[in-house]
Amino acid sequence: MTTVRLLSDDEVRRIPEAWAVFEDIRATRKSDFVNNFWRALANDPPALARTWAQLKVVMMSEGELSPLVREMIYIAVSTANGCSYCIHSHTAAAKAKGMTDRAHAELLAVIGMAAQTNALVTAMQVPVDEAFQVK
Amino acid sequence: MTTVRLLSDDEVRRIPEAWAVFEDIRATRKSDFVNNFWRALANDPPALARTWAQLKVVMMSEGELSPLVREMIYIAVSTANGCSYCIHSHTAAAKAKGMTDRAHAELLAVIGMAAQTNALVTAMQVPVDEAFQVK
Amino acid sequence: MTTVRLLSDDEVRRIPEAWAVFEDIRATRKSDFVNNFWRALANDPPALARTWAQLKVVMMSEGELSPLVREMIYIAVSTANGCSYCIHSHTAAAKAKGMTDRAHAELLAVIGMAAQTNALVTAMQVPVDEAFQVK
Amino acid sequence: MTTVRLLSDDEVRRIPEAWAVFEDIRATRKSDFVNNFWRALANDPPALARTWAQLKVVMMSEGELSPLVREMIYIAVSTANGCSYCIHSHTAAAKAKGMTDRAHAELLAVIGMAAQTNALVTAMQVPVDEAFQVK
Amino acid sequence: MTTVRLLSDDEVRRIPEAWAVFEDIRATRKSDFVNNFWRALANDPPALARTWAQLKVVMMSEGELSPLVREMIYIAVSTANGCSYCIHSHTAAAKAKGMTDRAHAELLAVIGMAAQTNALVTAMQVPVDEAFQVK
Amino acid sequence: MTTVRLLSDDEVRRIPEAWAVFEDIRATRKSDFVNNFWRALANDPPALARTWAQLKVVMMSEGELSPLVREMIYIAVSTANGCSYCIHSHTAAAKAKGMTDRAHAELLAVIGMAAQTNALVTAMQVPVDEAFQVK
Repeated sequence: MTTVRLLSDDEVRRIPEAWAVFEDIRATRKSDFVNNFWRALANDPPALARTWAQLKVVMMSEGELSPLVREMIYIAVSTANGCSYCIHSHTAAAKAKGMTDRAHAELLAVIGMAAQTNALVTAMQVPVDEAFQVK
Repeated sequence: MTTVRLLSDDEVRRIPEAWAVFEDIRATRKSDFVNNFWRALANDPPALARTWAQLKVVMMSEGELSPLVREMIYIAVSTANGCSYCIHSHTAAAKAKGMTDRAHAELLAVIGMAAQTNALVTAMQVPVDEAFQVK
Repeated sequence: MTTVRLLSDDEVRRIPEAWAVFEDIRATRKSDFVNNFWRALANDPPALARTWAQLKVVMMSEGELSPLVREMIYIAVSTANGCSYCIHSHTAAAKAKGMTDRAHAELLAVIGMAAQTNALVTAMQVPVDEAFQVK
Repeated sequence: MTTVRLLSDDEVRRIPEAWAVFEDIRATRKSDFVNNFWRALANDPPALARTWAQLKVVMMSEGELSPLVREMIYIAVSTANGCSYCIHSHTAAAKAKGMTDRAHAELLAVIGMAAQTNALVTAMQVPVDEAFQVK
Repeated sequence: MTTVRLLSDDEVRRIPEAWAVFEDIRATRKSDFVNNFWRALANDPPALARTWAQLKVVMMSEGELSPLVREMIYIAVSTANGCSYCIHSHTAAAKAKGMTDRAHAELLAVIGMAAQTNALVTAMQVPVDEAFQVK
Repeated sequence: MTTVRLLSDDEVRRIPEAWAVFEDIRATRKSDFVNNFWRALANDPPALARTWAQLKVVMMSEGELSPLVREMIYIAVSTANGCSYCIHSHTAAAKAKGMTDRAHAELLAVIGMAAQTNALVTAMQVPVDEAFQVK
């Protein structure tokens, strides 16, 4: 149950700006599957185009962090923000990029550890040590 | 300004269970510096011992994720949870473990991207695609 | 699946303080429909009365912000807090008050933008500029 | 205290991609003042350019929501996400765009109301009414 | 640094509705001290009156939960929401109501434990067991 | 729908470290029922053992806070973090430990009150009073 409609391919095909994004998603991912997030966002074609363009740069560009590491960071943020859809979609993406059960378990352990110490630090209102200040 | 006292070395030395942890922190990190989080947690020696033991396993054990990747995931969670202290301490730790400015920038970009799509997905209440379901 | 029972009209009718609120909800909204939030809250009649009274003042009183703008702000907060029910109920309310698809898309874009820059600012721990301080 | 450096004008001037953004910020806002967020983001010039471009579209484009309403929605999200910097900068922006003390008070009241009912709904795990489902 | 002004006693005295609340705060707490939250809220006298009235009912009325337990729950929520001011003020209130260092440590341990398992459950997307459903 | 598999008793029995935890859960709770959280966590047997050991100390050890009060604090944190599973499981646990409908209603009222004032304080950026500082 969404608050906007999920557009079918037939509907998106009638919106050139949105359809071009769908075609690029399919070409980039080498798959015919376009997931619901993009079908929801297609109601606002410029937002769809902007978000997909940003995602390509942020998640797929050359860089020091591997695509798999970026997916795991995405899962970490999505967990802290409680976004079920995002956890599912990015866990699937991480697995497709080679995340093993062992790596997944390590990711979960760090997420749980961080959430715990975040809460303890906040409840005790610990001040930042001088040594941690950026020079 | 904390809600518990930050214990000095002189105070911790009088609590054997806590002092043993401080000595292990120093030996493990090969540094005399013990940061404020542990000085706050030292008010509850079993919690101090338990949390440090867990941190060693979760952040330093052998595994598939490098210590640097684990620190970056920690930063991601701490950011989503808004824990300033944790962001500072784990950014410092990540830099000490070799995080370059480029890697930091990539981390920030993923964090920002995820926060944005988390919010969009939540506001549109997008249902999880069948394809993402774990088998 | 709730953690309290959703009370039916027959049950609420037996609790005068709660029934008076239900009657006012119906009269105020000119509709027989009472949504599940109030049926859950009816387990604590004074909380039901207090919350409804506050909602009438905050959301329906004369003021500078139109009822529609207030609903959109409500959606924004509910999204950041990850409250599915609230997102659904207040999106429905906003549409009933005239929110067009265009306005909805603009709202979503601001929510996504804010979530992204909130995360970036927090991860970079940007200090508040002097210029932003209230006089 | 930041986790990245705040770049001065002298430093940004040496990065053409970043300087072009600073010039556009100044021209667009008709003010010489560039706030710390952009000085922090300037460490990653493509992220700076991308974020500013998105902000211009999302916050300043023609549309149904006035620039002031968009700022108030931004404040609402930033509050729920606990981003002090963002609350300060967007409250200042909203005041500059004409937000009166009365409108500010109404905004705060809606934010507080929403946070309260978000929590109540979540604690009671209220299911979404059929009537709220999008057609 | 606030986004509204903190009103002094001299200023509040000129607003009868707000001054009556200040007098009741002082009488109820048997103390001349009025903390900053109320001085900020005094900019919107009806919100001040409404919030104080609700606080008195929720935190001080007769009931099954002792005032101290209510303060500890308040700290727990404030920690999860990252509200520094609220953590400080309610930790002070809890101490004034008799919270010992031992009880404080137990509270912190539960908060940290819950934050950790909340994150683990969310990352693993664990479905609610039938057995937990309310009858 | 989970992101890890929920292990059946037959599967856990083949992992000695995990099965020992399941046996202790059953012995400690004097019940054959092992809820889904542990079946999900069983994919990482050391994490299962560590988390269960911590839970026993934090939630069941002798102390000043009763087991019921600890469960109510757990519910408060889980609500603020939006963890549906945790809200359900700990509400069930609290009821099993004697939480009456009246106590539950009082808990909900405090959670709602805190969420509201957290948001108001954050939106107004109220500075901590000197009087609240720990000595």
